[in-house]
Amino acid sequence: MPVRLHAADPASLHPVPGVLLGPVSAGIRKAGRRDLLLMTLSPESRVGAVFTRNRFCAAPVQVCREHLGQMAPRAFIINTGCANAGTGVAGLSDARMTCEAVGKALGVPSEAVLPFSTGVILEPLPMERLLAGIAPAQQALQPDVWSVASETIMTTDTVPKASSRKILVDGYPVVVTGISKGAGMIRPNMATMLGFIATDAVIRADLLQLLTEEVANLSFNRITVDGDTSTNDAFVVTATGKAGHAEIEHADTPAYRELRDGIAEVAVALAQAIVRDGEGATKFITVQVEEGRNESECLQVAYAISHSPLVKTAFFASDPNLGRILAAIGYAGIADLDVTGLRLYLDDVLVSEQGGRAGSYRESEGQRVMQQEEITIRVVLGRGNARATVWTCDFSYDYVRINADYRS
Amino acid sequence: MPVRLHAADPASLHPVPGVLLGPVSAGIRKAGRRDLLLMTLSPESRVGAVFTRNRFCAAPVQVCREHLGQMAPRAFIINTGCANAGTGVAGLSDARMTCEAVGKALGVPSEAVLPFSTGVILEPLPMERLLAGIAPAQQALQPDVWSVASETIMTTDTVPKASSRKILVDGYPVVVTGISKGAGMIRPNMATMLGFIATDAVIRADLLQLLTEEVANLSFNRITVDGDTSTNDAFVVTATGKAGHAEIEHADTPAYRELRDGIAEVAVALAQAIVRDGEGATKFITVQVEEGRNESECLQVAYAISHSPLVKTAFFASDPNLGRILAAIGYAGIADLDVTGLRLYLDDVLVSEQGGRAGSYRESEGQRVMQQEEITIRVVLGRGNARATVWTCDFSYDYVRINADYRS
Repeated sequence: MPVRLHAADPASLHPVPGVLLGPVSAGIRKAGRRDLLLMTLSPESRVGAVFTRNRFCAAPVQVCREHLGQMAPRAFIINTGCANAGTGVAGLSDARMTCEAVGKALGVPSEAVLPFSTGVILEPLPMERLLAGIAPAQQALQPDVWSVASETIMTTDTVPKASSRKILVDGYPVVVTGISKGAGMIRPNMATMLGFIATDAVIRADLLQLLTEEVANLSFNRITVDGDTSTNDAFVVTATGKAGHAEIEHADTPAYRELRDGIAEVAVALAQAIVRDGEGATKFITVQVEEGRNESECLQVAYAISHSPLVKTAFFASDPNLGRILAAIGYAGIADLDVTGLRLYLDDVLVSEQGGRAGSYRESEGQRVMQQEEITIRVVLGRGNARATVWTCDFSYDYVRINADYRS
Repeated sequence: MPVRLHAADPASLHPVPGVLLGPVSAGIRKAGRRDLLLMTLSPESRVGAVFTRNRFCAAPVQVCREHLGQMAPRAFIINTGCANAGTGVAGLSDARMTCEAVGKALGVPSEAVLPFSTGVILEPLPMERLLAGIAPAQQALQPDVWSVASETIMTTDTVPKASSRKILVDGYPVVVTGISKGAGMIRPNMATMLGFIATDAVIRADLLQLLTEEVANLSFNRITVDGDTSTNDAFVVTATGKAGHAEIEHADTPAYRELRDGIAEVAVALAQAIVRDGEGATKFITVQVEEGRNESECLQVAYAISHSPLVKTAFFASDPNLGRILAAIGYAGIADLDVTGLRLYLDDVLVSEQGGRAGSYRESEGQRVMQQEEITIRVVLGRGNARATVWTCDFSYDYVRINADYRS
């Protein structure tokens, strides 16, 4: 059961001028479900992208990196059901062949096509079925099917993930719409499983790349379900340049910040949706670490808490066994941490200070907060002015069930 | 269900001359079970010890470190049910008061007593009941109750853990007997939850400390259940000096190596027992990484695999979803890893090479190995001559159940 997450109303997902979507069923893994999405971008579109840092990165990720170095993309081809990862040279050849077929169909060079795959690792892409799906996907191209597109890219997701905003950039109306997928094998560096955001804003290509990285660090790089960094993670921002405002040429301008904040808002919604739909999740947990010496040590503490199976199972049980949080802070790797100087809060309840249980703490208060569906763990380190926030979920029977049964 | 683990036959656990054990029920947490163990050491005993590196280390760990700096220990007092961690200055005072009471009862300075606690964090030690248990523990002191002692220190353990050997040192018979406890919150640095080994060997104090560290790195520092480093971990080796051989005065001698290997054998058995009894474990998994540039990168890869919830749930399901192992190798943090140069084996079955599935691999073969209760994951990095081995277990519904219910 996802935590307070519902499919977006299709009418709330604004089309992005210059972007068309073709979602179809190609029978990649299971018959009778949409599993192949073609996205086309108008000429002059710019694309920023960040990818997994996993050394076993999938063949499509390698081809994406190659193609991005050669020309501006005109199309994305996205399949679910098979990750085309751990597939060696055959996998690379399959990814390239897919781009050639899409390029030929659209009349663009194959280097203008970016391939994305998600699903099971170590199995070959079913090329015949995938290639057969390209023509129907092209015929299906429409501007206003973001909702169907978000369903098409799902794997173990239980709710499709899409978000959309209308913002003002430099006084002009701009649209930002995105979709994402992912529910397990979720850990930053980089990103989520797959996230695609499009906008009609006008921005120089190098600034769009900077913006993509900044937004990733505020959203997809701040979520974790199980600490597993996927082989296929990708977050891509497309700007079609169809809006009326002047091109954004500097990062230090109000227009850049307006666009970045609008895209970040959509990205945070998409990233949080992944945690809310985390495999087996019953609780949405915000881990907020404050007063660290630097952001990096705040993140170390936040991830130690977020990845602890003991913390996560205690939240699943609504059991205020909060010493497990202290243990995780203690092994987070801050060598000179003075544990008597930090404070731990559960929402507004002070749980621990001076190295022990707070005098004011009552188990009934901890129990009350633990019953909630959304909980903030707040750690005040008392060492400096840096802070960081990570979003995660609890660890339930269903996580085990989902991941034990995934392929069957 | 522990994986091929049975309580040791009490008759197989040899008494160690100079060591007496007093296991009693003090009602620390639950009535009607033994939960307090007094261990006394004859004069002239030497002690080596390694402790958790968790910054939130428990009060007893802090007091152990203090006392070890002051004099040779004459007694250990070990309670289960409450960890006395996250208990601030009150917890320190409780640990010191415990040592004073034991010291007074035995007629030794309180600094000659080492306190150990395991159980729930963030709750105060029930001092009245604990102190009341010391006199009965003293009356119960006997040399031949290692089996009962191993039951006394259990928490979520389902099987008591004890191991014993008779070895030869310098041609003289020497006894090595030990007990350990722990089933969750298990990750190296340092050690297990609690491990106590005693021998009647004769060895200089500084060499015993060196030996203890060497043995820890071959045993308790090579196991992981859930990646959570406890606040209370301790591994203690006592040498009573009652055996007939000449004192070991150099590490570079056959006698040192004989003793170290004998103690390591017992320590590995005790450490592996903790994994076999890992919370909810149904599989015992050996992760063996070879041909790394150095031991440290081999360990990085071994732990990435051992800590991946996706890998662990796949093993629980006996599902050869082995791409998850490649993904874990890929995010283990070796920046210049060439994934096309490594090989992955499941027992004797070659699963992956050249960045993809091995041509010879058949899913039926992977399936066959996955059905076993004991499995070796072997990663051959092809980068050098270093190697490392880690022992872990799978991740099941029962891990969640045990940790969601622990306090209730």
